Amino acid sequence: MPLRQRLYTIIFESDTPAGRRFDTTLLWIILASLVIVVIDSIEGVHQQYADLFANIEWGLTGIFTVEYLLRLYCSPRPLRYAFSFYGLVDLLAIVPGILAIYYSDAQYLMIVRVIRMLRIFRVLKLGPYLKQANYLMAALRGSKQKIIVFLMSVSTLVTVFGTLMYVVEGPEHGFTSIPMGIYWAIVTLTTVGFGDIVPKTPLGQVISSLVMITGYSIIAVPTGIFTAELANAMRGEQLDHDCPVCRKNSHEHGAAFCSRCGNALFRKIE
Amino acid sequence: MPLRQRLYTIIFESDTPAGRRFDTTLLWIILASLVIVVIDSIEGVHQQYADLFANIEWGLTGIFTVEYLLRLYCSPRPLRYAFSFYGLVDLLAIVPGILAIYYSDAQYLMIVRVIRMLRIFRVLKLGPYLKQANYLMAALRGSKQKIIVFLMSVSTLVTVFGTLMYVVEGPEHGFTSIPMGIYWAIVTLTTVGFGDIVPKTPLGQVISSLVMITGYSIIAVPTGIFTAELANAMRGEQLDHDCPVCRKNSHEHGAAFCSRCGNALFRKIE
Amino acid sequence: MPLRQRLYTIIFESDTPAGRRFDTTLLWIILASLVIVVIDSIEGVHQQYADLFANIEWGLTGIFTVEYLLRLYCSPRPLRYAFSFYGLVDLLAIVPGILAIYYSDAQYLMIVRVIRMLRIFRVLKLGPYLKQANYLMAALRGSKQKIIVFLMSVSTLVTVFGTLMYVVEGPEHGFTSIPMGIYWAIVTLTTVGFGDIVPKTPLGQVISSLVMITGYSIIAVPTGIFTAELANAMRGEQLDHDCPVCRKNSHEHGAAFCSRCGNALFRKIE
Amino acid sequence: MPLRQRLYTIIFESDTPAGRRFDTTLLWIILASLVIVVIDSIEGVHQQYADLFANIEWGLTGIFTVEYLLRLYCSPRPLRYAFSFYGLVDLLAIVPGILAIYYSDAQYLMIVRVIRMLRIFRVLKLGPYLKQANYLMAALRGSKQKIIVFLMSVSTLVTVFGTLMYVVEGPEHGFTSIPMGIYWAIVTLTTVGFGDIVPKTPLGQVISSLVMITGYSIIAVPTGIFTAELANAMRGEQLDHDCPVCRKNSHEHGAAFCSRCGNALFRKIE
Repeated sequence: MPLRQRLYTIIFESDTPAGRRFDTTLLWIILASLVIVVIDSIEGVHQQYADLFANIEWGLTGIFTVEYLLRLYCSPRPLRYAFSFYGLVDLLAIVPGILAIYYSDAQYLMIVRVIRMLRIFRVLKLGPYLKQANYLMAALRGSKQKIIVFLMSVSTLVTVFGTLMYVVEGPEHGFTSIPMGIYWAIVTLTTVGFGDIVPKTPLGQVISSLVMITGYSIIAVPTGIFTAELANAMRGEQLDHDCPVCRKNSHEHGAAFCSRCGNALFRKIE
Repeated sequence: MPLRQRLYTIIFESDTPAGRRFDTTLLWIILASLVIVVIDSIEGVHQQYADLFANIEWGLTGIFTVEYLLRLYCSPRPLRYAFSFYGLVDLLAIVPGILAIYYSDAQYLMIVRVIRMLRIFRVLKLGPYLKQANYLMAALRGSKQKIIVFLMSVSTLVTVFGTLMYVVEGPEHGFTSIPMGIYWAIVTLTTVGFGDIVPKTPLGQVISSLVMITGYSIIAVPTGIFTAELANAMRGEQLDHDCPVCRKNSHEHGAAFCSRCGNALFRKIE
Repeated sequence: MPLRQRLYTIIFESDTPAGRRFDTTLLWIILASLVIVVIDSIEGVHQQYADLFANIEWGLTGIFTVEYLLRLYCSPRPLRYAFSFYGLVDLLAIVPGILAIYYSDAQYLMIVRVIRMLRIFRVLKLGPYLKQANYLMAALRGSKQKIIVFLMSVSTLVTVFGTLMYVVEGPEHGFTSIPMGIYWAIVTLTTVGFGDIVPKTPLGQVISSLVMITGYSIIAVPTGIFTAELANAMRGEQLDHDCPVCRKNSHEHGAAFCSRCGNALFRKIE
Repeated sequence: MPLRQRLYTIIFESDTPAGRRFDTTLLWIILASLVIVVIDSIEGVHQQYADLFANIEWGLTGIFTVEYLLRLYCSPRPLRYAFSFYGLVDLLAIVPGILAIYYSDAQYLMIVRVIRMLRIFRVLKLGPYLKQANYLMAALRGSKQKIIVFLMSVSTLVTVFGTLMYVVEGPEHGFTSIPMGIYWAIVTLTTVGFGDIVPKTPLGQVISSLVMITGYSIIAVPTGIFTAELANAMRGEQLDHDCPVCRKNSHEHGAAFCSRCGNALFRKIE
């Protein structure tokens, strides 16, 4: 087996022990680079270890660059890889490290490396997770339109309530503008309730109560949508089986007889 | 085709390219007028662009007025349109712009234009959204009585707990009156938790804990109601009729025979 | 019809127009008495209308007393009424009014009159609401044991987390005692989040994050329990029907054949 | 019956009246020891009753030690008990009491005694609770993989949003480091909303709104997962086996024939 193909097996696949080891090591390196970005942002830590961290980040960016070039080298179709989802993510994982030489703020872009963690599903036993993710995806796809209807209603609600509260409470109680009122309405409707802006007037409190009760009740809507869709996806859809007599082609889940002509859908084998 | 009828096709329908273009343009204008009201409320922006915004609002109100008159003109039954839901909303979209000449606060009424955004469903592919909205509506209608029972229980709970907290904590801890206590109980039961009023006495904290656990648990009730109804609506169990033989009590919409026992659901009277 | 019996029809039943009128009037009076207690607790209102409200409350207590005596008088079995649920509630509605002469704080006990509002279900068309309430009750009863298991787990969680936070954060950050820590844990786990006590140490914030994620996830448990039970109650239970051959007596919902012996459960009538 | 065996019946079982009495007494003692730890942490109470509580705790630790030794003595296989779950918990219940002589903080470890409360299920009528707990466990086990997928998505979300907010808001608005940003993102996404750190810049508030809406919507996911699994577990669809004739894919536990088409699910190999 030529080197390039052997490399491909190790880098792109995870069926062989070597490929598995490669993926696992890569994941740990990615995780390490994320942890460094995160703890480097702590003032006290940064002052003491700034140089050390900068060096490690340099090293890690180097490793990722080498890995990216290797991937380009051993891929049978380098361009297709380069413009695939994973290819772009792999590129994005390098760029901030290089940008950070010129703009120190760019290092926070390194957090996009978190997306590389998606590779973790490759290392874990893939099958069952993918199946479950598919169920979740099927449920989300099935509920997409209902969720758009829902999000539009929510947007309308927060716009109206936000404006109302701006008019009722006014800037002296923290509602300095309609966008601020909308922000407050979102905070309240989602039951987050920071408490940075709170209604002070009796009328404002009555409206707030309304918003809260609404928010508390309509959380039922996305939950209901998603649950019903997920239960659907898990139960399997309706029964697709032609009735031998009348050819009605879709039936209730669990139907034994055709609900149109009353004939048995399945022959009993004796 | 006479002008009036051609106008009707463009303004009231969205099947033709022109009608579609008209609806889309209208939506963007409505959105623009909303955005202006919203950002004009920001102090800094208002001071700089007040005149500009006032002029734009004038223009937009003018456009809406012309549109309203055109609708009246080309509608085959103008009165029926004027008193229809959309007709009233279209009128409401103009009035605040005119009122704003006399009362500057009236401009916030323009936010009612948000209701006009409902037209968006016309521009999007209508069918599937309407079907989904119908499912949601069917679920809500089916759960109406359960939700009234639920809201009454919640009202009773917050009244009792609000009074209790007023007596226990008293005005010195922010519970200045029973309505304030009820407001606090709503904030807490819905798990919003602003933190503007918090219990200070041990007994008050015990009662609060009770309210929170209650709120946390009974959120299950509207969710459960809605989910069960939605699952029902989606499964399409519209036919409630006991099978005369096996007593199966719900059947596919349009079923003539029971899908369990194959017997005719309805006897033919001869 | 003797007076006593006629009174009984009016006071205890709501089928006749007079009885319905009586119940409706009573409900409005109860509501009025509640509103007075509530708004009388507002400082500004109390100072101005204290005397007026005291007089009205006197009058209302008088009316309730007369009503209670009438109920005792016209009831065929006065003692049984007196010790029934509604009888005790009716008595409780009078007592605070009389106690208030001696202890002014007793007036807040009047809030128990809110329980009398339960009579509202009599005035509304009773049937459908009762049926829905029954569904809810069936769901709650069915999930009682699961909910006890759940509440015990929650109690254990908040005790452990509350103690942990007390040890980690200590009195200087507001966690003045273990009960305070438990109170905080409840506030956090239920996602209320007042913000009166918040973790300040990094370790405390890590533990808090754990509590929040836990709280956010396990809200699924009561919801799931209740929804599943409600769906169950609404779908109707399993099929109770003896298999004509093997006598297996309970079957899957929608079964056409016995899953033990394979024979048809229902004969097809031809 | 020798003493050792009689002791075993009393201490380890709860079928006899004596065994039941023993378990109940033990539970009350455990509860008492917990209550003492909890209220001893209140400053005022501690100053007054420190000595009294120390003595009681000594006594209780003594009782637990005696109980532990008795258990070791009368157990037929002492080592197996000592290393069983309950054996370790019983040991853990003693250790902190002894450690507390040297380190006064160790007394808070006594809170692990709360785990001993699990014995309560033995005293309550065991059966139904265990069955319900099993349903819950089955639902949790069934949704394990979906929940891992979900928790990973949440972790990714809070990391990205936390970093974003750190960059946007910066240390001057309380976002002192990325870990702090992640803590804030968790507080917000779970809809707890303490309000100790809140966005101040307009852009920060827009991002926050996004986090809140996301958190508010994705709470549907664990709920949906758990509900669907629980409904599954309760319906008892434990047999996943396609019917060879009609392809119905889930059957009653213990089914030999398909309840839809009546055919044998498994072929007998002869």
